[in-house]
Amino acid sequence: MKIAVDAMGGDFAPQAVIEGVLQARSEFKDLDFILYGDEAQIKPLLPDMAQLSIVHTTEKIAGDDEPVRAIRRKKQASMVLAAQAVKAGEADALFSLGNTGALLAAGLFIIGRVKGIDRPGLMPTLPSINSEDGFNMLDVGANAEAKPEHLHQYGLMGNFYAQDVRGIANPRIALLNNGTEASKGDELHKAAHQLLADDPDLNFIGNIEANDLLKGLADVVVTDGFTGNATLKAIEGTATIVMSQVKHAIMDAGVKEKIGGLLLKGSVGQIKTKFDTSIYGGAVLLGLKAPVIKAHGAADAQTVYYTVKQIHTMLANQTVQKVIDYFDQKKVSDETK
Amino acid sequence: MKIAVDAMGGDFAPQAVIEGVLQARSEFKDLDFILYGDEAQIKPLLPDMAQLSIVHTTEKIAGDDEPVRAIRRKKQASMVLAAQAVKAGEADALFSLGNTGALLAAGLFIIGRVKGIDRPGLMPTLPSINSEDGFNMLDVGANAEAKPEHLHQYGLMGNFYAQDVRGIANPRIALLNNGTEASKGDELHKAAHQLLADDPDLNFIGNIEANDLLKGLADVVVTDGFTGNATLKAIEGTATIVMSQVKHAIMDAGVKEKIGGLLLKGSVGQIKTKFDTSIYGGAVLLGLKAPVIKAHGAADAQTVYYTVKQIHTMLANQTVQKVIDYFDQKKVSDETK
Repeated sequence: MKIAVDAMGGDFAPQAVIEGVLQARSEFKDLDFILYGDEAQIKPLLPDMAQLSIVHTTEKIAGDDEPVRAIRRKKQASMVLAAQAVKAGEADALFSLGNTGALLAAGLFIIGRVKGIDRPGLMPTLPSINSEDGFNMLDVGANAEAKPEHLHQYGLMGNFYAQDVRGIANPRIALLNNGTEASKGDELHKAAHQLLADDPDLNFIGNIEANDLLKGLADVVVTDGFTGNATLKAIEGTATIVMSQVKHAIMDAGVKEKIGGLLLKGSVGQIKTKFDTSIYGGAVLLGLKAPVIKAHGAADAQTVYYTVKQIHTMLANQTVQKVIDYFDQKKVSDETK
Repeated sequence: MKIAVDAMGGDFAPQAVIEGVLQARSEFKDLDFILYGDEAQIKPLLPDMAQLSIVHTTEKIAGDDEPVRAIRRKKQASMVLAAQAVKAGEADALFSLGNTGALLAAGLFIIGRVKGIDRPGLMPTLPSINSEDGFNMLDVGANAEAKPEHLHQYGLMGNFYAQDVRGIANPRIALLNNGTEASKGDELHKAAHQLLADDPDLNFIGNIEANDLLKGLADVVVTDGFTGNATLKAIEGTATIVMSQVKHAIMDAGVKEKIGGLLLKGSVGQIKTKFDTSIYGGAVLLGLKAPVIKAHGAADAQTVYYTVKQIHTMLANQTVQKVIDYFDQKKVSDETK
């Protein structure tokens, strides 16, 4: 199994990327890596070339590049070449820490959609307070203009992922909505609710409200990309701000508070660990013909390692192939109805 | 100036409602209150009847009543009678701690919309970390199915409110969107961005992302009711969960952490104060012909007092009349174009 790695994406590229890949390499002997990027920068970071190869390029897509244009014009960019390798069958998965929009465009226009999936969805794993497992949410922003069928497809794809990668036998699928009753929501979410509820292949548990997300009531939360994006950012922004307020309450106050802070350091530090989702890997662009995974730009070597581990699990379980087969059979069954 | 008070709404009714009204009564001598509810329960709570009158009724709308049906069938409910009084000109504003959906229905079907406003918006005041002022956000759920013009109207109404009630000369109006660039968003938000940007009456500062909301970058944040509802709930849910994790880190750990917690008690307690928005009053249903204000069901007497203060400011400034006049003139100007 071979992963095409965009070695030049992210804030600490290529160092963090290479370091994480090397850590994963020694654990996963069945993985090979093609590293796309500047050989002059990459080579000195490699002790040897076991399981590794380099495809040299100096072109790269910047964080503020317009995604579709960047993919079309920067034909020698590390991300584009890595996607081409997946398209050509030379690699089985694409991994990047770079521009999310460009990665989506590379996935769509180079690797291509799964037949039967109208829109890929971007799916991170988020933390929940009542378990170690966290939950998946999709779409968080790949597609701002959603239709009910898209949300139904997100539920089906998230279901395969939660089974394969997270080992949940019968994942609880929920729909993010503005109330728990089935009648709640705008037309989009009412129709999506119906499609999800009517699907015998899904363990659909109904609507979930945004204030309950972190409680771990569902394994996969389905949402449209616009609402999902705002909700994800609201959670991240609020958690960051509240924790920084706690820090200020300790550091900017008197001696008494500073001593209190020292006594609490380990204990409060565990909260940060609890909300740290890097062990789950990166966000998956589900609905493409191969695993395409995005780790955040500020990811360190440890996060890169976990993301490779995540990709390894997806490849070993053939998660994407299951999605492809499922929608193939679904199409046949729909046609013979 | 007279406020119709639904004395039976909320978890601690009528005690908390009456106590808060009495506190406000002694400060605002120019206010009269009509208390709608069970006289047998209300009367014993009143030391005298100065500035007060009671309209007796025993019917009330429950928290889980279907809003429109409740308003139509429970014609003697305290909320319905209070709305009727505003409609009849016997009172100038409606105040309730009860069922939000029913209050919206009462506002729409009994009090009526401002001409030129298609959909009322529900607008709370939320906290921001960099100022005492907080910010307003609307719509957070009155209308799940929004059009660009609705969002434009929310901006205009929020602008009047921020000027009148919060004393901000030139409120910064922003649009909640999935990116800061003007080109971002789905069709709804792209079109709304254009309408807001083109309006010379607004100090529109562009898009804001959900992770920046609590930073106080805008005075009024415009959003559709579906996204606004999810975002508000995500903020509330995350803040609650993170703070409870901090509490657990202190209380469930060892002696060391408990001492640390004691030393930090006052300082960490201030965070709760910082995020306490009750001093801003309740959420306003903007777009109705009179101020209709909803305080949350769990509100205490202090919050009721602050909400009366807020209504007093709206009445003294004739905020709703300004909205009515503005949209009247706008209509004339649009017609003569």
